[in-house]
Amino acid sequence: MPERLGDIGERGLIELIRAQYGYSWPDDDSAAIEMGKEYLLITTDAISRGSHVPEGASMEKVGYFFAALNLSDIAAMGGRPKYFMSALTFPKDTPVDDLLKIERGIRRCLAKYGVRLIGGDLKQGKELNMAGIAIGAVPRRRILKRTGIRRGDVLCVTGSLGKNAAGYYMWKRYGGKKWAEMLIDIEPRVKEGMFISEYGASSAIDLSDGLFSAISQLGRINRCGFLIDYYKVPIDSRARHVSNKLGIDIEQLAFNFGGEYELLFTVPKSKFARMKAAAARKEVMISEIGKASEKGLAMLKGGMVRRIKGSGYEHF
Amino acid sequence: MPERLGDIGERGLIELIRAQYGYSWPDDDSAAIEMGKEYLLITTDAISRGSHVPEGASMEKVGYFFAALNLSDIAAMGGRPKYFMSALTFPKDTPVDDLLKIERGIRRCLAKYGVRLIGGDLKQGKELNMAGIAIGAVPRRRILKRTGIRRGDVLCVTGSLGKNAAGYYMWKRYGGKKWAEMLIDIEPRVKEGMFISEYGASSAIDLSDGLFSAISQLGRINRCGFLIDYYKVPIDSRARHVSNKLGIDIEQLAFNFGGEYELLFTVPKSKFARMKAAAARKEVMISEIGKASEKGLAMLKGGMVRRIKGSGYEHF
Repeated sequence: MPERLGDIGERGLIELIRAQYGYSWPDDDSAAIEMGKEYLLITTDAISRGSHVPEGASMEKVGYFFAALNLSDIAAMGGRPKYFMSALTFPKDTPVDDLLKIERGIRRCLAKYGVRLIGGDLKQGKELNMAGIAIGAVPRRRILKRTGIRRGDVLCVTGSLGKNAAGYYMWKRYGGKKWAEMLIDIEPRVKEGMFISEYGASSAIDLSDGLFSAISQLGRINRCGFLIDYYKVPIDSRARHVSNKLGIDIEQLAFNFGGEYELLFTVPKSKFARMKAAAARKEVMISEIGKASEKGLAMLKGGMVRRIKGSGYEHF
Repeated sequence: MPERLGDIGERGLIELIRAQYGYSWPDDDSAAIEMGKEYLLITTDAISRGSHVPEGASMEKVGYFFAALNLSDIAAMGGRPKYFMSALTFPKDTPVDDLLKIERGIRRCLAKYGVRLIGGDLKQGKELNMAGIAIGAVPRRRILKRTGIRRGDVLCVTGSLGKNAAGYYMWKRYGGKKWAEMLIDIEPRVKEGMFISEYGASSAIDLSDGLFSAISQLGRINRCGFLIDYYKVPIDSRARHVSNKLGIDIEQLAFNFGGEYELLFTVPKSKFARMKAAAARKEVMISEIGKASEKGLAMLKGGMVRRIKGSGYEHF
């Protein structure tokens, strides 16, 4: 048996817990509880200063980021986020002003998405640690899960990829507020999640662990493969710029890094044209990037098909 | 403005946030959301190794404690806990075995109270930090809040007080597994909370911050006072023993320490006799310890009435 958490990673640990106790840790971004005609969605996501808060970012942006990444898990299920709570742990010498700024950032994000703060917990500890709880709802027939993919489904993504990774590598090289804040600059794709759910998406997941990790998880859960069309993947212009400037492969930034919260989703082929037309009308940015295949993860690039390895980002 | 969190304490900070932003942080143990004929109850409570986990306690007991203190907030509202999630942050070098033991403890507590684990988050950080989320439900007319007290209501407590404080002082003096585990040995008073709600309690709160702190909070919220009858307060025999052995005032252990999770509640005088009879029949341990008065906090002891000062335990 592995001795230390660092040896097995987050997913390894979850598998170990599953094996020992037989209970299921849900595969989806949020837990879903039946409540009449709706599912209540509940999710929790924690960040701690040393691991997830880049030095240099303003505490207000950190608060926004923290709320946004929790709302993202509701968005990825097609839900509308409604309530938010937080359990904050702070060292005794934390400047009160930092905490008020974090609160302001949380409030700004919640206000933007119409979410109500319903309480929380404040405790003392060695390191700033913030655990968020987002609660939302989705009509029962509209819920988006990680399961539900059929071969031939169109694979799509919202927005464009690689900006957060670009921020990370620039911040690592040069430090400073600008790059730190680009690294944590995310929006929960709430409008997009509800839109794709309305137009018949068959599954969704957020890209917090990166594109390759996401398709590898979806493939495992759905026992299918994916073929990605390299030139169709929407790459953020800042990622291209940083890729050139620092000499880092654009795939590392846009496919393998994670830390961004766009939605990856699938749609039955029969429904895609209608969704695409509506997206243009409603100014929702979605891009077709490939399709669900029989098995294996592959990338089509310049007429060549190559296998995708790599599992993206793990938390340990 | 105070500079550091340690200067103002948890409640001071909440007041400051309230003053700055005008939103209300709920006064109750859990947040309550209307869902048809029920309230959905949601609560979060976090612990971190340095501040809340005594050296020497087995990780399984720590896990049990962690789940129990979250369920306690549901119990204090008269609710039935149904679901549990956790956001766990661990240092990379945490022994996997520790984590599996914590999981086992959580599972044991959840199984005892019929609560389902519905997911969670695992992250890396500098210090072990565990944020729990408990979700429960209570029929709308049965919800117990911190408000609702009328002058003359009977003040009661479940179980007996001072055991956890006794564990703390013995552990501080002698260290070791036995005392560390007595310090964190708690049960969420789920059966009791539902019972007192059924029999017409007018308010409830858990004693996590200690008896004096709890009545001071209830008094402030309800603009009332309390008169406690010293000799009616049920004191745990271990607290008496430790009080004698270490020469610590029993009031410090049983009234001022906190860290225990019995429920303090009020009942209209007209309903108390029926509740008391039912409690005896159903083997629910409740004790009348005083009453809600016009104003002020006072203690009746040996024919003398003296004012209660002291605010119990604060988290910063």
